Amino acid sequence: MNTTWQRKDLLGIQDLSVDEINLLLDSATAFKEVGERAVKKVPSLRGKTLVNLFIEPSTRTRTSFELAAKRLSADVINITATASSLVKGETLKDTALNLQALNADIIVIRHSAAGAPYFLSKLLKASVVNAGDGAHEHPTQALLDAFTIREKKGRIAGLNVTILGDILYSRVARSNIWLLTKLGARVTLSGPATLVPRMFEEFGCRVTYDVEEAIRDADVINLLRIQHERQRKTMFPSTGEYAALFGLSKERFARLKPDALIMHPGPINRGVEIDSDIADCGRSVILEQVTNGLAVRMAVLFLCSGGQTGEP
Amino acid sequence: MNTTWQRKDLLGIQDLSVDEINLLLDSATAFKEVGERAVKKVPSLRGKTLVNLFIEPSTRTRTSFELAAKRLSADVINITATASSLVKGETLKDTALNLQALNADIIVIRHSAAGAPYFLSKLLKASVVNAGDGAHEHPTQALLDAFTIREKKGRIAGLNVTILGDILYSRVARSNIWLLTKLGARVTLSGPATLVPRMFEEFGCRVTYDVEEAIRDADVINLLRIQHERQRKTMFPSTGEYAALFGLSKERFARLKPDALIMHPGPINRGVEIDSDIADCGRSVILEQVTNGLAVRMAVLFLCSGGQTGEP
Amino acid sequence: MNTTWQRKDLLGIQDLSVDEINLLLDSATAFKEVGERAVKKVPSLRGKTLVNLFIEPSTRTRTSFELAAKRLSADVINITATASSLVKGETLKDTALNLQALNADIIVIRHSAAGAPYFLSKLLKASVVNAGDGAHEHPTQALLDAFTIREKKGRIAGLNVTILGDILYSRVARSNIWLLTKLGARVTLSGPATLVPRMFEEFGCRVTYDVEEAIRDADVINLLRIQHERQRKTMFPSTGEYAALFGLSKERFARLKPDALIMHPGPINRGVEIDSDIADCGRSVILEQVTNGLAVRMAVLFLCSGGQTGEP
Repeated sequence: MNTTWQRKDLLGIQDLSVDEINLLLDSATAFKEVGERAVKKVPSLRGKTLVNLFIEPSTRTRTSFELAAKRLSADVINITATASSLVKGETLKDTALNLQALNADIIVIRHSAAGAPYFLSKLLKASVVNAGDGAHEHPTQALLDAFTIREKKGRIAGLNVTILGDILYSRVARSNIWLLTKLGARVTLSGPATLVPRMFEEFGCRVTYDVEEAIRDADVINLLRIQHERQRKTMFPSTGEYAALFGLSKERFARLKPDALIMHPGPINRGVEIDSDIADCGRSVILEQVTNGLAVRMAVLFLCSGGQTGEP
Repeated sequence: MNTTWQRKDLLGIQDLSVDEINLLLDSATAFKEVGERAVKKVPSLRGKTLVNLFIEPSTRTRTSFELAAKRLSADVINITATASSLVKGETLKDTALNLQALNADIIVIRHSAAGAPYFLSKLLKASVVNAGDGAHEHPTQALLDAFTIREKKGRIAGLNVTILGDILYSRVARSNIWLLTKLGARVTLSGPATLVPRMFEEFGCRVTYDVEEAIRDADVINLLRIQHERQRKTMFPSTGEYAALFGLSKERFARLKPDALIMHPGPINRGVEIDSDIADCGRSVILEQVTNGLAVRMAVLFLCSGGQTGEP
Repeated sequence: MNTTWQRKDLLGIQDLSVDEINLLLDSATAFKEVGERAVKKVPSLRGKTLVNLFIEPSTRTRTSFELAAKRLSADVINITATASSLVKGETLKDTALNLQALNADIIVIRHSAAGAPYFLSKLLKASVVNAGDGAHEHPTQALLDAFTIREKKGRIAGLNVTILGDILYSRVARSNIWLLTKLGARVTLSGPATLVPRMFEEFGCRVTYDVEEAIRDADVINLLRIQHERQRKTMFPSTGEYAALFGLSKERFARLKPDALIMHPGPINRGVEIDSDIADCGRSVILEQVTNGLAVRMAVLFLCSGGQTGEP
């Protein structure tokens, strides 16, 4: 592959080419090795400034980006919504322009509004990395999921991947669907009918409300987190009923293909989306997803900063 | 100029000599260049510990000091009021003594009480840098404003500088007035009569309640941020009326000298102190103030740590 | 002494041998010297990742660990309860497994539940350091107290140490009692009868409700912080009465042995546990405890990371 990375931003999966996705995944392999060294640190981004601008709370993703940046030797500034002068009524545009005026090289943004990272990317010379925008995209999550599948299964093309749960409001689902279909996987969506709209068939997915059918031939099952606030809005019944109808119980697990991978973007609700023992079993790669997330984010930060070859 | 920096602290502008101010501004020029490098990092403060002690919320100033320190290779600890054991009833004195006992080299303090940095500076061997104390002083803001004027206009002496808005409660106004008059500028103050007391004439300023007169001959206009909480106390009418009476509208902008600089310490209230398009126009240097703030703060931290010559 | 450090964790004092305690204290001596250098930084933990997981608020201890880690050149991530996805209902187990999946080398944990650090240490390959668990242990506090006593008195064996105040709910008291009795000091406990249960005699301490008797022969007096919330539960009378009955007033101070050391884990309540002037007098080592805390924590982090000899 002769592709080089030409973008300053990573905004979503939808507009990436297959070659670009593969370049990101290949680069992440090199950075994963850095995390296994005694000295987990490379000088690639020394003297660069990364700002974690989290206008929606998140410990996991913020921490992963923070560590990725520090292992690349960048200087990291964390700005969260409550601490930010957004509270004083400053617009997102002004916050971003101010961060750029501080010579920030990369702005990692999480925002409840879909499109916020795109807006910033047009405005700024700095690189913008989307860490989740509304129900739109969460590209590094999809990349780490794909990285994990590829590492475990050796390929993505031709696999049956089932995504189970709250598809409607999920940026993880959207980014995964775009990435997996681009790379040739067959994607099945399932879950409560209120949360899995048929219109997703337009993205090339199969939609079924029969969970047993959805998981029967799956090589990979990706269980999305149940947002308790949806339940209050009666998008699904109680968590107990959700577990019974859609959770990966021991019984359902026993009916999976013997080499099916169990994935979950975390944090898991033990006993709801997934039986607690299944979450900890050898075929669950939930924690490997976390490890791979760091590698993928190091690759993204490195490439968006101008490192075209993907070697740390 | 043969002045060297002899102070361990930067507490305010009022007690600085003209030579000291010029030394700070000259040093900032060298540090500004660091922010333009690919590797924005110098080893000047390696192994030094800086504590950002913010007993009043601030993202912008805290971030600027944090980045300044990190680009000087210092270790940075952030302590904010809500997280601090001040909450547990510990006095400011004890908090400061404890920070010094951790071998902190520099304490950057923002506090709602005027004089708090002076109090600490007497108590501590560590350097104390005032990041804003009540309505008293905000010396690094005045230095970055002066740096920006000098860079754009080539000089400060003889210029007409108009400060417009809430003067009464503004530490930015006080520090600017002291700095600009020391360096030979003519300072005019204007705004709502409730917020611009005549007593400021004692500092050598002109006070006028005629905004048109205040801006007519200005080489520089510094628009202070309207604090919405003042409005609730009926110190000024609605923000709409403020904009009409005192805001820098397109109409007022058209009557300025053609090379007048537009400044604002941020965060701006678009459509209140300043028309949104004017804020973004070529004569607005609001974002350059942010960039220069970093350079000025690097110089301050460097000099107060014992770097007498001002070379990074 | 030929002991080397074999543990990956520091969970408490109770299960340490005398040789292990002495090794920690000896190592801290070497690290204290680092804090006195112009460049307070050694490369011992470069490329290691330390996570400060504080599920109970603390600025002082968190800051001390953060600085200790940074002076050892580690990368530090702070996670606090309100920011953490524990808030989203994730279990402590899952939070910890996720941190390990990020290749964290050391997890420093403060938790309101006694035993939480032990639970994590069994689960993780990463090192776990107890920064305070419920009313159980606070081992680095006891080590810094012992370090301070040894530095000032030249020894611990044979000294009379009186701990005064809220013993019942205090992890500081428990860790101190275990450490001091192991090293041969005679420990006396005193304070309000509601807060100093007789059962502590089983740990080899003397318990007396006569404060004058408790302090008369003391070589060291360790004043524990009064938790105001206990008062509300009527565990002790008003703070004024507490000061009169149990506080170290000038009068009581005058009756101490002339070389008795005054200690307090901080933050102090001036005028309650201790007269304000006594807190600042030459025989108070309260601030030296803070300085020594940093040295002790550097030693702990270094040894638990595999540095067996205790040389930085």
